[in-house]
Amino acid sequence: MPDRPMTHAVPGAEADAAPDLGPPAREPTHAERCRTLVATATRGSLSTLAVDPAGYPYGSVASYALDERGNPLFFVSTMAEHTQNALADPRASLLVTEPVADGADPLASGRATLMGPMLRVPDEQRQTARDAYLAANPTASYYIDFGDFTFFRLTVEAIRYVGGYGRMSWVDAAEYAAAEPDPLAGDVAAGIIAHMNEDHADAQVLYCRHLLGRPDTTSASMSAVDRYGFDMVAIAATGRAAVRVAFDEPCDDGVAVRTALVALVAEARRRAAG
Amino acid sequence: MPDRPMTHAVPGAEADAAPDLGPPAREPTHAERCRTLVATATRGSLSTLAVDPAGYPYGSVASYALDERGNPLFFVSTMAEHTQNALADPRASLLVTEPVADGADPLASGRATLMGPMLRVPDEQRQTARDAYLAANPTASYYIDFGDFTFFRLTVEAIRYVGGYGRMSWVDAAEYAAAEPDPLAGDVAAGIIAHMNEDHADAQVLYCRHLLGRPDTTSASMSAVDRYGFDMVAIAATGRAAVRVAFDEPCDDGVAVRTALVALVAEARRRAAG
Repeated sequence: MPDRPMTHAVPGAEADAAPDLGPPAREPTHAERCRTLVATATRGSLSTLAVDPAGYPYGSVASYALDERGNPLFFVSTMAEHTQNALADPRASLLVTEPVADGADPLASGRATLMGPMLRVPDEQRQTARDAYLAANPTASYYIDFGDFTFFRLTVEAIRYVGGYGRMSWVDAAEYAAAEPDPLAGDVAAGIIAHMNEDHADAQVLYCRHLLGRPDTTSASMSAVDRYGFDMVAIAATGRAAVRVAFDEPCDDGVAVRTALVALVAEARRRAAG
Repeated sequence: MPDRPMTHAVPGAEADAAPDLGPPAREPTHAERCRTLVATATRGSLSTLAVDPAGYPYGSVASYALDERGNPLFFVSTMAEHTQNALADPRASLLVTEPVADGADPLASGRATLMGPMLRVPDEQRQTARDAYLAANPTASYYIDFGDFTFFRLTVEAIRYVGGYGRMSWVDAAEYAAAEPDPLAGDVAAGIIAHMNEDHADAQVLYCRHLLGRPDTTSASMSAVDRYGFDMVAIAATGRAAVRVAFDEPCDDGVAVRTALVALVAEARRRAAG
């Protein structure tokens, strides 16, 4: 038996008969997942309140950047509907969704709705907003100095997070503001997942058999990785289960993850031999 | 000189010095473009009015189908936020966006915001809604008979259409309801564009030189095709221009388009020789 907790069923997975291994493996909080999701995109659906037909919620496309507390910054034409709407009533929300792979169930992917007042950025903060916006949206350099465009900030006060079936909550706005996006999110995580599934399927079976108390595992594949650990789908004759292994310490880059994954193989082999 | 009008600068293209060839070539109305855009997708961003924080516009992800007048039908959990919102206040909008290719400017792609009341579908219309919804969203068959899901219809009363830079308008709801989606939209159009650009670059130069009064055209590529005609980007030493050629009659399938494109080559050669 493992001597420390390293697994739990990922929310939304089928119920299964995993042995009781103690408390769940550490995973990102919903505030962290939400902050990561919003940080890895630059475009969302902005909802404002229409001037006409009055009071109707109005959805539009908006590119954004984030300030240091994760509040979206927009650079919008003063003539655009959403700008006119926000000037008349600042109540707004931004919906950000994870990309959905072809054929995948769109309702299983993550999305976050950030709600709060959307107000013009004061002149003394314009330069900071401009720098952040251009860093996130380089093509905006073509019109960044147009006179009829201006910066707005949506100050996040309420957050609805849906990470897929069964993983959803209202996220505390202060927790969101303080959370750090996952340093692996994006290309680093995608590279680790591809590498592990192409070249290290055997290691993943070892993790499941000897670290997670699933001796009947026949194959396993990584589905996600973050600074705190990784998720796999473990397959046995009796079915499939979503499982998680935590790293001993948070890993802030690909090198740290590699070191941790190698150490976990050694640990699995030690337990298999013992 | 052509003896019938076949070109105009596509809105949003750079100004250029095209010869005056009379009224613009026929193209889809904004109502038709909008209906086509909405018909080629099955997922959008739904904006409703939040119960808490009260009155805030709330963006969420929603799959949909269309009824015969282009009104979106949703199949939603009664526990979901957007459902609770719509039950408390039916004012809603659905934002549908064209897919954006990697690296393309998201603000140059098409999107439509359909606004209207979102109400529960009456029991006697449930079967029709169910059939339409399953045809558009086959994966919903897994939960189509769950007791806590129900059908809603957004009856479109106002429409904002943005087809890219400079092509935008409020579309009349009755015109939208009466419009037919373009029969070529999707795979047929994509196949025609790919085929013309891979195998018939020369034909496109002929169109530009001899049908559109652009004798200095050095290359051209098709950017869009619909039942009424097609758009090209024409390149000359002096610059590039977005141009359009209309078909003599609307083309409802790929065979009709092929016939029309071949006839236009013959016409171009005839004029070149004459």
